[in-house]
Amino acid sequence: MKTYDRIIQESLQLFNEHGERPITTNHIAAHLGISPGNLYYHFRNKEEIVYQIFLMYLEYMREHLRIPEHRLLEPDDLGRYLDAAFAAMWQYRFMFYDLPGLFSRSPQLRDDYHSYVKNELGPILAKALGQFAAIGFMDMKPTEIVPLATNTWLVVKFWFAFQQTIHPDRPISEETGKIGARQVLSLFKPYVKPDYLDKFEAIEARYRNS
Amino acid sequence: MKTYDRIIQESLQLFNEHGERPITTNHIAAHLGISPGNLYYHFRNKEEIVYQIFLMYLEYMREHLRIPEHRLLEPDDLGRYLDAAFAAMWQYRFMFYDLPGLFSRSPQLRDDYHSYVKNELGPILAKALGQFAAIGFMDMKPTEIVPLATNTWLVVKFWFAFQQTIHPDRPISEETGKIGARQVLSLFKPYVKPDYLDKFEAIEARYRNS
Repeated sequence: MKTYDRIIQESLQLFNEHGERPITTNHIAAHLGISPGNLYYHFRNKEEIVYQIFLMYLEYMREHLRIPEHRLLEPDDLGRYLDAAFAAMWQYRFMFYDLPGLFSRSPQLRDDYHSYVKNELGPILAKALGQFAAIGFMDMKPTEIVPLATNTWLVVKFWFAFQQTIHPDRPISEETGKIGARQVLSLFKPYVKPDYLDKFEAIEARYRNS
Repeated sequence: MKTYDRIIQESLQLFNEHGERPITTNHIAAHLGISPGNLYYHFRNKEEIVYQIFLMYLEYMREHLRIPEHRLLEPDDLGRYLDAAFAAMWQYRFMFYDLPGLFSRSPQLRDDYHSYVKNELGPILAKALGQFAAIGFMDMKPTEIVPLATNTWLVVKFWFAFQQTIHPDRPISEETGKIGARQVLSLFKPYVKPDYLDKFEAIEARYRNS
C-alpha cells in the first residue's frame, strides 16, 4: 500500500478508536513508523487527512444509496440501504462522535456535509419512500414522506451516540448497528401494506439473533 | 433571591449560552458581582453546581411526566407530555450539548441519569403508550410499544443537536422545540385509530404556524 493510503487507513483506525481530537499527526506518524516529515510531505495538516476520510465516506454513501435509474426500488432494497447506512456509520464513526466540533475546525467539511445532506441524501430518502409507496409496498400519504425520512435519518445518525449514553460501559460494535437497523425498521412497519408484511418480516429477521 | 439560588440561575443561563465547559466558577462569580470566596462558601466546585442543576431537571421531569394514579391518560395528555419534554430540553439544553463529556466529569450525575432513564423514564413511556392503546386512542401491538418509546425518546433527546448540525447558522430556540414536537407526533400518527384522528390533528395543530 502506498504511504498516502496507509496514512489514511491508520488515521481512520486511530480516530475511530480514540476520537479524532486527541490524535495528532505525530501519533499517526509514530504508529506507521514513518517520520513526521514524511507525513507532512503527503498532508499539510491533520484537517487535510480528516477531509480526505470524509470524501471516502461521501463516496461510499453516494455509491451505496444510489437510486437505480432503470428500475423501481424493491422491498429488498430497504435491507440493502440499511446495511449500507449502518456500515458507513460504523466505518466512519469518529465523525459522528462530535460533528459540531469537527465542523468548527473544518468549514470546508461542514459546507460539503450540509450540501450533501440537503441536496443529495434528503432527496434520495424522499424518493426511495415515494417508490416504496408507488410499488404498493408501503401505504403513506405524500405529506408523511418527509417526516418519516427525517425520523429515519435522525435514528441512523444518532444511534451510536444514543447507545453510548444509555450503556456507557458497553462498547459499541457492528452488532450495535444491527440493533439500530431493527429500530429503523420499526419506523417503517406501520406503513407496510398487509400483502407485504411477510416480506417485511423476512427483512427484519436478518437483523435478529445475530 | 438567596445567593445560593442566584448562583444556580446565573450558572444555568451561562451554561446554556456558552456551553458548560468554557464557563468557570470565576466567570459565574464575576457575572453575579460576588467574590469567588463567596461562591465557594456555597459550592465546592463547578461540578457541584452542575449536579444541582441536574437535580432540578430531574425534579421537573418527575413532576411533569408523572402518570396519574386515579385515572387513565387521555389524548390531551400527549400534548401536555410533549410540551413538558421539550420545555425541559430547552431549559436544560446545555446538558445535552455534550452528555458524554458531562458524564466523564461527573460519575454521580452519569449514574443518576442512567438510573432515571432506565428505572423511571423508560417504564413511564411504555406505560403511557400502553394506556393510549387501552383507551382506544392508538392501535398497537404490545411488541410495538418499546420500539416506539425508544424512537420517541431518541427524537426528543437529539432534536436540538440534529437541528444544529442541519442548520449550523440558525440558532436553536423554543420554536425549534415546537417543530420537534410535530416531528415526535409523526411517530405516533400511524397508530392513531380513525375515531381519534380529529382529536390527534387538533393536538398537532397546536404546534403549527407558531
